[in-house]
Amino acid sequence: MTESTSAISTPAALRALIREGRFDGPTAGHGGEALQANLVILAGEAAQDFLRFCQANPRPCPLLAVGEPGDPSLPTLGDIDLRHDVPRYRVWRDGALEGEPIDIADLWRDDMVSFAIGCSFSFEDALTRAGIPVRHQAAGRNVPMYRTSLATRAAGRFSGPLVVSMRAMPAADAIEAIAICQRFPLAHGAPVHIGDPAQIGITDLDRPDYGDAPDIRAGDIPVFWACGVTPQAAITAAKPALAITHAPGHMLVTDVPSSQAERRLTGIHTR
Amino acid sequence: MTESTSAISTPAALRALIREGRFDGPTAGHGGEALQANLVILAGEAAQDFLRFCQANPRPCPLLAVGEPGDPSLPTLGDIDLRHDVPRYRVWRDGALEGEPIDIADLWRDDMVSFAIGCSFSFEDALTRAGIPVRHQAAGRNVPMYRTSLATRAAGRFSGPLVVSMRAMPAADAIEAIAICQRFPLAHGAPVHIGDPAQIGITDLDRPDYGDAPDIRAGDIPVFWACGVTPQAAITAAKPALAITHAPGHMLVTDVPSSQAERRLTGIHTR
Repeated sequence: MTESTSAISTPAALRALIREGRFDGPTAGHGGEALQANLVILAGEAAQDFLRFCQANPRPCPLLAVGEPGDPSLPTLGDIDLRHDVPRYRVWRDGALEGEPIDIADLWRDDMVSFAIGCSFSFEDALTRAGIPVRHQAAGRNVPMYRTSLATRAAGRFSGPLVVSMRAMPAADAIEAIAICQRFPLAHGAPVHIGDPAQIGITDLDRPDYGDAPDIRAGDIPVFWACGVTPQAAITAAKPALAITHAPGHMLVTDVPSSQAERRLTGIHTR
Repeated sequence: MTESTSAISTPAALRALIREGRFDGPTAGHGGEALQANLVILAGEAAQDFLRFCQANPRPCPLLAVGEPGDPSLPTLGDIDLRHDVPRYRVWRDGALEGEPIDIADLWRDDMVSFAIGCSFSFEDALTRAGIPVRHQAAGRNVPMYRTSLATRAAGRFSGPLVVSMRAMPAADAIEAIAICQRFPLAHGAPVHIGDPAQIGITDLDRPDYGDAPDIRAGDIPVFWACGVTPQAAITAAKPALAITHAPGHMLVTDVPSSQAERRLTGIHTR
């Protein structure tokens, strides 16, 4: 039901289409260079626990913005109404997927807190600009993701394994990628592991737990980043009465240029 | 013939002892946090070629300072007289080692150009401060160094293989080490390779071409940095009529605090 297959170049134009119910597709490639975000919405005590979980696990859960309780806007990220502005949501009841609506106005409650969490699109853009191959993009696939033997730090009802995404590349590119990505803590920062997958509990790279099988070339070394699927896995395991997230690939598109996210969201506020 | 086994804490005090011929030992652990440097002295056309070689190969040959022809001082690095201020030199004639004097005043000529080249001590300090193990230091050994299948960029008579030093560490430490070292381009910068040694032509890590055998623990990944032995190897291969270098481990000790080297030597000059 997506309006157009050509790229929609401004985040405001894209969100306007989404808000009117005229765009419900994946957001990759749309909105120009705007920062895109993972979305989690929780209510009551679960929201309080989840905020502490994100604070304790900034690599998988870098917080771009947290809404005021009951307020569906996120003013630091743009003119956003979270009841309408994500192209497709997922609604979870007691940890089970209930549906994938394109609007959640009828579900919104005055104790709901929204969490916008950084995603890997930002650093993949930076890698591409640096001439580093991002193999799953070139192959038109989803990034491969794996549950690891590394544990997150628990907070209240939330805990569970760290989920990582993997990008394979030549060693010299991996070194450059590490140097680049440590400048983007809001996009998961530097990798968490490089080399032997078994050291972090991954037994078969060709069989990821999420996403598509990887494209690994001769001489590549696997590089692993903390992944935004980690909080979703923790939420589904914790089974809160109600949770709302974006549907995979259907991200919250913000007004913040991706390359300015670190400065604008972590610097001193000038107004 | 070294005066004392306890550390000499200031670079000026250490150089004064060296200048008087009362200290001729390795400089590691002396001079406080002062930047230490590899030294190369060449004359005439060889010096011109070598300057271009360093410019073309900044990872193995980061230039801290280049002397004026015939001038044995390096004022940006301190109150230095290169005819006396290195604890032990090596003198090379037509690429062959002729001797290891503690003073080269009788060899100095008015067409000689000196090159101070960054060394790995600076970044090893930074790694240690970050809690990253530097295994050869803990074992009281020299760092292992290897000739690789990677070629330097030739300039005039100078060419040859890149020589690398290797430090083995857990993968998470390797990622942090890359992030740290890219901030120190004057100390060889980020690593040039990580992982499989065969990819850069190293067949047996346990048999380095220079230095001591490595201490590699289970789960370690090898990390390779461009090494200051590269220019020495290029010089001995090029066989200039006369070359003078420091003797291994017997470095030029400067007045520049190691942690301020990048700012003071690559920033805008304020006086």
